[in-house]
Amino acid sequence: MTLDDAMTAAAKAVEDQLDRLLPVSDGREKRVHEAMRYSSLVGGKRLRPFLVLESSKLFNVSPSCALRVAAAVEMIHCYSLVHDDLPAMDDSALRRGRPTTHVQFDEATAILAGDGLLTRAFEVLADPASHGDPQVRVELVSALAAASGPAGMVGGQMFDLLAEHDSTLDIGAITRLQRMKTGELIAFSSTAGAILGKAPHVSRAALAAYAHDLGLAFQIADDLLDVEGDAAEVGKDVGRDVDAGKATFVSILGLERARAQAGLLAKQAAAHLESFAEKAELLRQVAEFVVTRRH
Amino acid sequence: MTLDDAMTAAAKAVEDQLDRLLPVSDGREKRVHEAMRYSSLVGGKRLRPFLVLESSKLFNVSPSCALRVAAAVEMIHCYSLVHDDLPAMDDSALRRGRPTTHVQFDEATAILAGDGLLTRAFEVLADPASHGDPQVRVELVSALAAASGPAGMVGGQMFDLLAEHDSTLDIGAITRLQRMKTGELIAFSSTAGAILGKAPHVSRAALAAYAHDLGLAFQIADDLLDVEGDAAEVGKDVGRDVDAGKATFVSILGLERARAQAGLLAKQAAAHLESFAEKAELLRQVAEFVVTRRH
Repeated sequence: MTLDDAMTAAAKAVEDQLDRLLPVSDGREKRVHEAMRYSSLVGGKRLRPFLVLESSKLFNVSPSCALRVAAAVEMIHCYSLVHDDLPAMDDSALRRGRPTTHVQFDEATAILAGDGLLTRAFEVLADPASHGDPQVRVELVSALAAASGPAGMVGGQMFDLLAEHDSTLDIGAITRLQRMKTGELIAFSSTAGAILGKAPHVSRAALAAYAHDLGLAFQIADDLLDVEGDAAEVGKDVGRDVDAGKATFVSILGLERARAQAGLLAKQAAAHLESFAEKAELLRQVAEFVVTRRH
Repeated sequence: MTLDDAMTAAAKAVEDQLDRLLPVSDGREKRVHEAMRYSSLVGGKRLRPFLVLESSKLFNVSPSCALRVAAAVEMIHCYSLVHDDLPAMDDSALRRGRPTTHVQFDEATAILAGDGLLTRAFEVLADPASHGDPQVRVELVSALAAASGPAGMVGGQMFDLLAEHDSTLDIGAITRLQRMKTGELIAFSSTAGAILGKAPHVSRAALAAYAHDLGLAFQIADDLLDVEGDAAEVGKDVGRDVDAGKATFVSILGLERARAQAGLLAKQAAAHLESFAEKAELLRQVAEFVVTRRH
């Protein structure tokens, strides 16, 4: 199976799982449930869930458990997009080629839909259907909360907002920002299979090292797309960082060096997976994919 | 010890615990950490944490475990206040006698502070320090997520926003709204001790019944304060429901009957605690307190 086929199949499976896990209601509160579905059921590369599913295969984790964890991670990712797109934050009108949630619904509903996705993610992880061993479930909750909380994604978004018009950030600061804002959730996704499979420390460390390089490569590629991409193809507004005079990997390194660095990190990421032999082939290809994608 | 002394001592202990559990940082993201602290470290009755601590005493739960769970519940409560106060939601400028978080900081920071408190609450519950048994921790995560998620508090806030100018709601609809918006978190708080203490089903059911009546009494008292209270004493804007032409327990029942109903529910709540004898004395007094409080 090619990576493209595998990612398409995984995205479909994750969407079906999200559809089953997200609430429906006949009550007045159904508006927020509809907004949660609107924010998460359509589109996206579903990269993070794919990492959960592929890392789970390395340790022969039950596919039904892996799929629930994959859906929970995607809920967290989608909540972060809904809140980041709000007028008070990045003020984005377009996401995945469609109106953002606050444009389609309204701001209050978008805030609540994000809150609902975030909360539901932890409820899903804590459910016995996600793993038979409560120790594993609680470890998943703990790791996902750490990755997405005030020392992780939430802190990273704060940092990012404050750095919006700051052209003085250096590579160290941008790398730290990236690690918090996107890197830790990618790291959780890449190591979730090891948690589910109760894998030995050495396997977890290999996946964490892979995720570290992958996350950085991903962010540099994102910065490149912001400069070189086409809004229709990328599915969201582009050119915003340049317009804001914001320091990015590209503004500091220049296009050529940024592209080279992303390629190097992708190769380095793949190299960490040697011990998994051919079982990790798709994870290796993902590293290549994130730096060559057009959206 | 009088109830007042006990609540004051508990509030102090919870604030110290929150202070220990909330993040600090020297990085640029410290703004969101400061906002999380601003939103949760000062004031409030700390009713929900008090319920956690008192229900824990019924089953001889370790005070240090109970205090962590109490702080986690308060994080959830405070996040909900921060988001509800936002301009897109209730647009409140005053809370606990101080500027609301988005007024003191800004909207983006307030949204992120809420997200951070919500996420950190689950991280705290999942930590081994909250209980030695992972089954108990995962049960706490599951119950708190259900109470505060799209079928609980988040759904209730959506319902409430949509009902803002609706004078046609009947008692059934208002009761359902209240149960989702405030009742389920009060129920979690009242039964958390039973989860921590691995109490038998009959004890959990008694506490759940207590919480059901207590939550409803609390909401009716809140509606009464909105009509009869003084902003300076209540610590937040009053008269908003009347101004909005919103149906409340008071608008439907009238002042007299609403007051009588709140009193009846408080007595009924206390009666559910008979089997705990004198150990539940403060919980009984809390029921009386919620309907006689002036703030």
